[in-house]
Amino acid sequence: MPVEGLAEVREGDDLGALIAAAVDLEDADVVVVAQKVVSKAEGRVRALEGVEPSRYARGISGERDPRQTEVILDETARIVRLRPPLLIAQTNHGFVCASAGVDASNAPRTGMVVLLPEDPDASAERIRARLQERTGRDVAVLVTDSFGRAWREGTTDVAIGAAGLRVLVDLRGRRDSTGYELHATTIAVADEIAGAAELVMGKLSRVPAAVVRGLDLTGSGKGKDLVMPPDRDLFR
Amino acid sequence: MPVEGLAEVREGDDLGALIAAAVDLEDADVVVVAQKVVSKAEGRVRALEGVEPSRYARGISGERDPRQTEVILDETARIVRLRPPLLIAQTNHGFVCASAGVDASNAPRTGMVVLLPEDPDASAERIRARLQERTGRDVAVLVTDSFGRAWREGTTDVAIGAAGLRVLVDLRGRRDSTGYELHATTIAVADEIAGAAELVMGKLSRVPAAVVRGLDLTGSGKGKDLVMPPDRDLFR
Repeated sequence: MPVEGLAEVREGDDLGALIAAAVDLEDADVVVVAQKVVSKAEGRVRALEGVEPSRYARGISGERDPRQTEVILDETARIVRLRPPLLIAQTNHGFVCASAGVDASNAPRTGMVVLLPEDPDASAERIRARLQERTGRDVAVLVTDSFGRAWREGTTDVAIGAAGLRVLVDLRGRRDSTGYELHATTIAVADEIAGAAELVMGKLSRVPAAVVRGLDLTGSGKGKDLVMPPDRDLFR
Repeated sequence: MPVEGLAEVREGDDLGALIAAAVDLEDADVVVVAQKVVSKAEGRVRALEGVEPSRYARGISGERDPRQTEVILDETARIVRLRPPLLIAQTNHGFVCASAGVDASNAPRTGMVVLLPEDPDASAERIRARLQERTGRDVAVLVTDSFGRAWREGTTDVAIGAAGLRVLVDLRGRRDSTGYELHATTIAVADEIAGAAELVMGKLSRVPAAVVRGLDLTGSGKGKDLVMPPDRDLFR
């Protein structure tokens, strides 16, 4: 269910209170909130005016504004692939995504860019606490963003922050209906929920949140649990 | 909505007719069918007995049955990464996934493995035609499988075959609510639908199909449209 009727989100807005006022929540609901509004409420935006791009940032910018590249590099722990202007980065949190999550679309105004939240799991936890305070319901929260993938076209929304939810369901050691033991079967349910929510949120229609109801996945997973450790990652 | 009450699927079964008998469909429904049952209905299974593994297959098997590795290599166009027993392959269709999609879980019996359908888009089209014949409804069909991802933990279900649906929604050139033109924003909605369906299907509960209702994505995308062409793929 889309959460409709939210006004344009500004720095300092109380997202939990806004969402609580816009929907009727039930226990075990998963409230999915787009990273863009979380970042805007948290003031995680940068004006490009006054940013001084390094020589390196200018060199790898391609057609991108070099000041934006400079901001991307501030958010980057490691460059994973570079084909200017495309830059696939490992962010300071460990996520691997295009432009380290820095994006000019839906920014507060022209000449500004939006960064990922400083700590998306903490953002999710804060929104969750506020929702519970306002509604009395025991809900889970995901903070999501649209990430590209290796090998496949298009983006899908994935969870970068989580609170109150299992994010991975581990079937290893369990047996299928023929008695075969399942190996290496861990399902990233939080990412599947994020994608499901995107189907009703949309990029253009200003629906920055959705509620997914009917799942029984209460738990304590974190967005960072979804990041593959570099030593097991064959593509980083 | 899960499609429940389907019996164990065997070679030659008419999946479209079985699903049509199990659920009430509406126009524009997306019927999501797990690859495993599609392959079993199509006889895309192999008995390991009698398979003669090559020296190469034996060398890269690790703890896997070398005969299974031989079958995996039959399905492989190119090895993308190898850390035995882990083998990330580009399949003969172009998909990049573990073990070229060859899997021993939920096989018809011990000592057999299940392969991906020969042409998952054709499979989806056949099931769709049969569903329409039986129900008179204009529905879409996705054939889905659980794929691992680079950089992220766990699998998510993705679409490998499609019929009657837009699989990618391209927002390039459209403007957000502040007038900023969106670049490089193509959403892989078919993969998001596949993941949403997985949430009600499960690996253990023998629910091999689900219906996703309420989307308006009628179109003519194919599963192969979701494969990134190798020349644009930085991770292959």
